[in-house]
Amino acid sequence: MQPERILIIGGDGYCGWATSLRLSRAGYDVTILDSLARREWDREHGLDSLVPIASMRRRIDEWSRLTGRTIRFEHVDATDYPNLCRVVAETEPGAIVHFGQQRSAPFSMIDRDHALRTHVNNTVGNLNVLWALRDHAPQAHLVKLGTMGEYGTPNIDVEEGFITIEHNGRSDRLPFPKQPGSFYHLTKVSDSDQLYFACRTWGLRATDLNQGIVYGTHTDEVASSPALANRFDYDHIFGTVLNRFCVQAALGHPLTVYGRGGQTRSFLDIRDTVRCIQIALENPAAEGEYRVFNQFTEMFSVAELAGRVSAVAQGLGLDGEIAHLDNPRTEREEHYYNCVNTNLRSLGLEPTPLSDETIAGLIRLAAEHRERIDARLIAPRVEWRPQQPRALPRQVAS
Amino acid sequence: MQPERILIIGGDGYCGWATSLRLSRAGYDVTILDSLARREWDREHGLDSLVPIASMRRRIDEWSRLTGRTIRFEHVDATDYPNLCRVVAETEPGAIVHFGQQRSAPFSMIDRDHALRTHVNNTVGNLNVLWALRDHAPQAHLVKLGTMGEYGTPNIDVEEGFITIEHNGRSDRLPFPKQPGSFYHLTKVSDSDQLYFACRTWGLRATDLNQGIVYGTHTDEVASSPALANRFDYDHIFGTVLNRFCVQAALGHPLTVYGRGGQTRSFLDIRDTVRCIQIALENPAAEGEYRVFNQFTEMFSVAELAGRVSAVAQGLGLDGEIAHLDNPRTEREEHYYNCVNTNLRSLGLEPTPLSDETIAGLIRLAAEHRERIDARLIAPRVEWRPQQPRALPRQVAS
Repeated sequence: MQPERILIIGGDGYCGWATSLRLSRAGYDVTILDSLARREWDREHGLDSLVPIASMRRRIDEWSRLTGRTIRFEHVDATDYPNLCRVVAETEPGAIVHFGQQRSAPFSMIDRDHALRTHVNNTVGNLNVLWALRDHAPQAHLVKLGTMGEYGTPNIDVEEGFITIEHNGRSDRLPFPKQPGSFYHLTKVSDSDQLYFACRTWGLRATDLNQGIVYGTHTDEVASSPALANRFDYDHIFGTVLNRFCVQAALGHPLTVYGRGGQTRSFLDIRDTVRCIQIALENPAAEGEYRVFNQFTEMFSVAELAGRVSAVAQGLGLDGEIAHLDNPRTEREEHYYNCVNTNLRSLGLEPTPLSDETIAGLIRLAAEHRERIDARLIAPRVEWRPQQPRALPRQVAS
Repeated sequence: MQPERILIIGGDGYCGWATSLRLSRAGYDVTILDSLARREWDREHGLDSLVPIASMRRRIDEWSRLTGRTIRFEHVDATDYPNLCRVVAETEPGAIVHFGQQRSAPFSMIDRDHALRTHVNNTVGNLNVLWALRDHAPQAHLVKLGTMGEYGTPNIDVEEGFITIEHNGRSDRLPFPKQPGSFYHLTKVSDSDQLYFACRTWGLRATDLNQGIVYGTHTDEVASSPALANRFDYDHIFGTVLNRFCVQAALGHPLTVYGRGGQTRSFLDIRDTVRCIQIALENPAAEGEYRVFNQFTEMFSVAELAGRVSAVAQGLGLDGEIAHLDNPRTEREEHYYNCVNTNLRSLGLEPTPLSDETIAGLIRLAAEHRERIDARLIAPRVEWRPQQPRALPRQVAS
């Protein structure tokens, strides 16, 4: 039997690259479509991955050399509809995994230009993917990366995409209310609405993976050669909170908590990300079905995470101090937060809980590359609110 | 005291023009910003208003001649950010009324190009309006036209924008779940999410008017001179259902009901539209407040409306036959539908219910302009589902 053909949009990115290698190793016939825009945004903002990453050409050659497997690469932007359609038609994919989006909330809040670029890149790209599926691969299963941030922090349990609401003696199962907290998050909500509509109207099949905040960098595949290394962002724009704390710990800098740190979010290890995608592909949505899986394994407050990293850092002989900064974002700092994540578990996901070993590994990785770290890139500079003078960091004993 | 300055985006359109004149008459200092895109789309699709409409220049001159009042006009597209900002900064508006969007569901479903144009025109325009407000008029009250179609047809009562949900022993007031039924409706949902975010984050003040389907054409102001006449769309792309039925009745053609006609929707007379906008302006949202008013006065099924028009037509000696066509849209044809509209009523709206006189007036207006009607433009040609052979009309005795 021919291996199933998979088109991975955004396969050069943090989650996309690790997933592409895992799926190739698992026997899928992988084509990556990527504009390489993320590398361009790094250059534009003077950022760089902590761990050096090879060019896409080098990455693919190395993978082929190590495993004998071919990954095809198409240097195309999903907003370029004719070329997107060409690739979909040529690939004849059984599934499309769509990671190809600008994924930083701070990037989207820099100014109107960055909000607009995020909006157009993400929502036009998503619209194009849906039309390309409709016209060139209507049976293909779309696996789309959403975010747990779409839900915001409601005062009720967060279900997986839909909730049954009783109201005035009647009842319906309806889309779970969304309260996105940045222009980036707004695009993901819009994408979800587009997907649901396309499934209802055109009979497409789609899985929307509302992913938590991903940490870690290594999967078996990316760890198998330096030329396959995955990106590791620690800067104030693309760096996610746990990765940033580990870099700060390695440098002996205070771990910077925004505000009180009661902000609770969903998290998962990148090793679970790739496993979740594989599970979704192995259990495709039915024709016309739009389903949502909440893709995370644990919930932590930012202060809890800082405490975990601090303790591990101290065990490694590092300072591990914690500092509270004025929060650049508009978000609740104390709130209820409880999210359901049973769908992926019921399909076989065995979570990798955050361990001290994982944290220590990230701190060691950062220490190993410390000469590449530009510490000026860590402090937040993007404000959610306009024209507010930024207070200097207030340091608080940990 | 200086009259309040109002910027009306999309003031050349069906609701926008009637509102501009009403607000000018009411003493506001009105500036219209419009790309005139709608006139261009008409030309592109070979459509035209049943009632001839004058150029914007002629309209404004006539209004000035009749009333001595000045309406300024800026030929600018809301997607043109620098010029939008220039106009906002120069106008220093106390309020912005934003009608400037592609407002036809069938237009947005023609093909990917029309879906994209609708998406970019509406959502980029809206994003630009929010950033322009943030940077050039943060205290101005934004009155934005949404649509009742954002909600779809849930099996519970539709509240005004938000609903209190009890779930697992906890409770929160959350955005009412949306189930938009076309790429056009998707843009309006995205706009609402953007507005809510901008109010929470930047402290903007906004009123989102989720409007029902508007019928009628005359307000006192537009009726005061032929050069002030409002557009009247009867075609399959921009014609709304009641207006279309009246044109069909005038021609002696069957009133074409899509499917069974159990589709129930919210409606209002254009005279109530202009009154609602005025009420919203007179009672502005507070700083940081995002509020939603459901702007409609009555609910009818399509079959009921056809019955009403048929009866009036027969009273005028016309045929008034009703025909059921295969439904080109993907929508429920029998469903629960009950929507709340107390906010505007509590602020003083006195509804103008649909009367036989209104229907007769629309039939007479259509008869008066019957030489301008192209009957080939009435039958639906845009299909929601792809590649389905279109059945020929099945005529059913009324």
